Amino acid sequence: MAEEVIVYPGSFDPVTYGHLDLIRRGIKIFNRVIVAVLSNPFKESFFPLVERLTMLREATQDIPGEFEIDAFDGLLIHYMREKQIRLVLRGLRAVSDFEYEFEMALTNRRLSGEVETIFMAPSENYIYLRASLVKEIALRGGNVGEFVPPNVERRLLARYREMHAMS
Amino acid sequence: MAEEVIVYPGSFDPVTYGHLDLIRRGIKIFNRVIVAVLSNPFKESFFPLVERLTMLREATQDIPGEFEIDAFDGLLIHYMREKQIRLVLRGLRAVSDFEYEFEMALTNRRLSGEVETIFMAPSENYIYLRASLVKEIALRGGNVGEFVPPNVERRLLARYREMHAMS
Amino acid sequence: MAEEVIVYPGSFDPVTYGHLDLIRRGIKIFNRVIVAVLSNPFKESFFPLVERLTMLREATQDIPGEFEIDAFDGLLIHYMREKQIRLVLRGLRAVSDFEYEFEMALTNRRLSGEVETIFMAPSENYIYLRASLVKEIALRGGNVGEFVPPNVERRLLARYREMHAMS
Amino acid sequence: MAEEVIVYPGSFDPVTYGHLDLIRRGIKIFNRVIVAVLSNPFKESFFPLVERLTMLREATQDIPGEFEIDAFDGLLIHYMREKQIRLVLRGLRAVSDFEYEFEMALTNRRLSGEVETIFMAPSENYIYLRASLVKEIALRGGNVGEFVPPNVERRLLARYREMHAMS
Amino acid sequence: MAEEVIVYPGSFDPVTYGHLDLIRRGIKIFNRVIVAVLSNPFKESFFPLVERLTMLREATQDIPGEFEIDAFDGLLIHYMREKQIRLVLRGLRAVSDFEYEFEMALTNRRLSGEVETIFMAPSENYIYLRASLVKEIALRGGNVGEFVPPNVERRLLARYREMHAMS
Amino acid sequence: MAEEVIVYPGSFDPVTYGHLDLIRRGIKIFNRVIVAVLSNPFKESFFPLVERLTMLREATQDIPGEFEIDAFDGLLIHYMREKQIRLVLRGLRAVSDFEYEFEMALTNRRLSGEVETIFMAPSENYIYLRASLVKEIALRGGNVGEFVPPNVERRLLARYREMHAMS
Repeated sequence: MAEEVIVYPGSFDPVTYGHLDLIRRGIKIFNRVIVAVLSNPFKESFFPLVERLTMLREATQDIPGEFEIDAFDGLLIHYMREKQIRLVLRGLRAVSDFEYEFEMALTNRRLSGEVETIFMAPSENYIYLRASLVKEIALRGGNVGEFVPPNVERRLLARYREMHAMS
Repeated sequence: MAEEVIVYPGSFDPVTYGHLDLIRRGIKIFNRVIVAVLSNPFKESFFPLVERLTMLREATQDIPGEFEIDAFDGLLIHYMREKQIRLVLRGLRAVSDFEYEFEMALTNRRLSGEVETIFMAPSENYIYLRASLVKEIALRGGNVGEFVPPNVERRLLARYREMHAMS
Repeated sequence: MAEEVIVYPGSFDPVTYGHLDLIRRGIKIFNRVIVAVLSNPFKESFFPLVERLTMLREATQDIPGEFEIDAFDGLLIHYMREKQIRLVLRGLRAVSDFEYEFEMALTNRRLSGEVETIFMAPSENYIYLRASLVKEIALRGGNVGEFVPPNVERRLLARYREMHAMS
Repeated sequence: MAEEVIVYPGSFDPVTYGHLDLIRRGIKIFNRVIVAVLSNPFKESFFPLVERLTMLREATQDIPGEFEIDAFDGLLIHYMREKQIRLVLRGLRAVSDFEYEFEMALTNRRLSGEVETIFMAPSENYIYLRASLVKEIALRGGNVGEFVPPNVERRLLARYREMHAMS
Repeated sequence: MAEEVIVYPGSFDPVTYGHLDLIRRGIKIFNRVIVAVLSNPFKESFFPLVERLTMLREATQDIPGEFEIDAFDGLLIHYMREKQIRLVLRGLRAVSDFEYEFEMALTNRRLSGEVETIFMAPSENYIYLRASLVKEIALRGGNVGEFVPPNVERRLLARYREMHAMS
Repeated sequence: MAEEVIVYPGSFDPVTYGHLDLIRRGIKIFNRVIVAVLSNPFKESFFPLVERLTMLREATQDIPGEFEIDAFDGLLIHYMREKQIRLVLRGLRAVSDFEYEFEMALTNRRLSGEVETIFMAPSENYIYLRASLVKEIALRGGNVGEFVPPNVERRLLARYREMHAMS
């Protein structure tokens, strides 16, 4: 019970300060947090898996405590079964999130009776922060330094330049 | 009034236990339920129309009572006018559904003053069940036997194997 | 099946144009609508039961079709069992309504497996109309002629005068 | 970190199967769950504090694991500071809950930076279960055996009889 | 058009930093803001009207710009008609607010075609701040210095002491 | 302060009666409304920018008052900075809108502290009107004369014929 490991799954495309805030909160409560990045071969991500993992590693290197960054494909419950983990960590931001997250939590419980989802609220500063909005701002030339760590900002800026060089 | 026919429209891509539950509930109240599958030439479906109709026929063959499975393209209100039906049946699951369904019901009423939408709640077991989530689970190798009938499960599994053979 | 009776329960404290709209819609679909006014001995209503029934009778006298006005106390499902009715009619207006109504529909189904709730949308004109808001407007001296029939307006005005004579 | 205690606060007026479900889920994850019943001298509860505590004790006696039942008045964060607890457990049921719970969680964090709220979803069977609705059903003569444990049902029935003897 | 006056109505029971934030935002856009405190003889407020007005005057004395503090009873649209104002200012915080505010805005427009409601978002810091929650915290002995100005905090503290002296 | 200009941004793909209603409301309150059409090179619109601008110009030619139609690409706050505008006008229709709009308003404020968003409610008749739904209805052969002005209806009809000629 006490030596519990929790998995924090997501696409982290890219990692934002909101994700980092949740990782920190998770580490303070659970013995070990595994940040599990979804590799979805059937759905295109903005950054490829390797880059998403690299950005996460860079952005979390100063976070103290027990955590690990991993990738998985297929179903989260299969990954959890294999790793013998039964807890999932998810952030809740807004009402529109809530129903989706609730649906996922109950569906995962149905697929695997053992799986339990733990929801936490991010810092007030990151409640209205979504990775997709951050990308949109960056690709239109906006400054996203308040929303993502510097290593992610650099990569978004590089992408912005590439796209504008092409068009 | 009493001998009322009701149409239950949808894409049924694929049919789930939630849809079947609503069909059963509709049959108990209305004289005749027409399950009307939308054929949308401009938007790609996961299963082609013929397969969606076949799956519905197979899955409903043991349901007693007056119902019919049909296909339509174009606008629902045109289909209804032609068939001289004025009632629409729709399931309500969650808040996020509600606004969309409400908008559709009021829009249909505007387009055709006669059309009235009847909302019903599915069984508690199917409230957090969406066809799109079922597909996602199946295509990542999950077991969807709790969400769809066996004939649909088989087809989803076949699709999963095809996709993985290709990748 | 076809000769179905439906009960439309509520406190009707007082009846509004929104309620009347739903009664008319119900009558067009179901064989017989029973408007069932809740008499709650433990919760004070604004108008006493007898006055609520009188207002409903006056306001519905020109509505053609099969309907009946009745009162009940205790639990709706007990009233329905006694009358051998299994359908409930409820209007859905807004998201805030929706969750409450959904909870009630599922709870009634649990208490009595037979009971099925049918939701309908009122006319667009009455979506933002609540009996409690109408009362508040009337008691502050506002004109509620757009929201309630003349017989109800008269009674609200009388109440307004009484309260101001006292204060 | 690992030997974490969590407080599950509420008015438990009365305890329902939904609360018991959440207590069991909490015990499986945290080292120790303290069920903390709010004694609010300025707001009348349906059952007095002593009776609420008794009902909780009776209803939880067969739950294995580390938990404790306690009472507190004043502010939750003061109780937590005194007991040196920093985690709060709350169940999330529906969208309407969510905003209130989120507001409370963020407010508690503001009042005491250390406090962290952990949200969990109850069993699907108890999502549409509210203590206030259970009381209403019981006081109108309904059977609430599906919603509350037998010891609570008995007390609600006793209350129902008292009220009807008086009226 | 340009020389527009706007009324910011509310019960301000008591004024919070969220209200003050909205007053400041309003003053920056409109020529003149009238903060209109509702005197409702039929519903008890926590602080009497005179005290609510005093607190508002004290808390706003350093706000530069054109604004006025006034009281009204009866209906807002009557007050506005008399003062020849047609704009209402309201803050929007959360989804649960939204539907109520929308209903009020549309109802006011119906009662008086001229009336137009302008919604603004308060500072992120005050989104989860409600006057009723602030009172609850204060009356249970919590520190509300982050939510209300010092003059309001003092009065809430005085109330807290009175209530505890009595109990 | 008084001589304020406000920008009403959107994709207007195509302009609907709901947009026109909001433009009229804005003009009555602010000195000058700039309708700013987003040109997004990375996301395909249904109608090209030039056609969206033309439709807006045609549809607004009879609206009296100070307004202007313009196009912008990149970020709204950059456009506003350049034009020295600090107010944004947005319509609020439904709960699902609300969270997105709120997120945008707070994000814009973060990106540029000066920017303030003003929300207004469209006429009741246009609350359940979305440009995407209008397009869907038109492309399935429905009559959209109640939702868009005649010049837009003609263009949607032309598109419908093209698509059906091709298929």
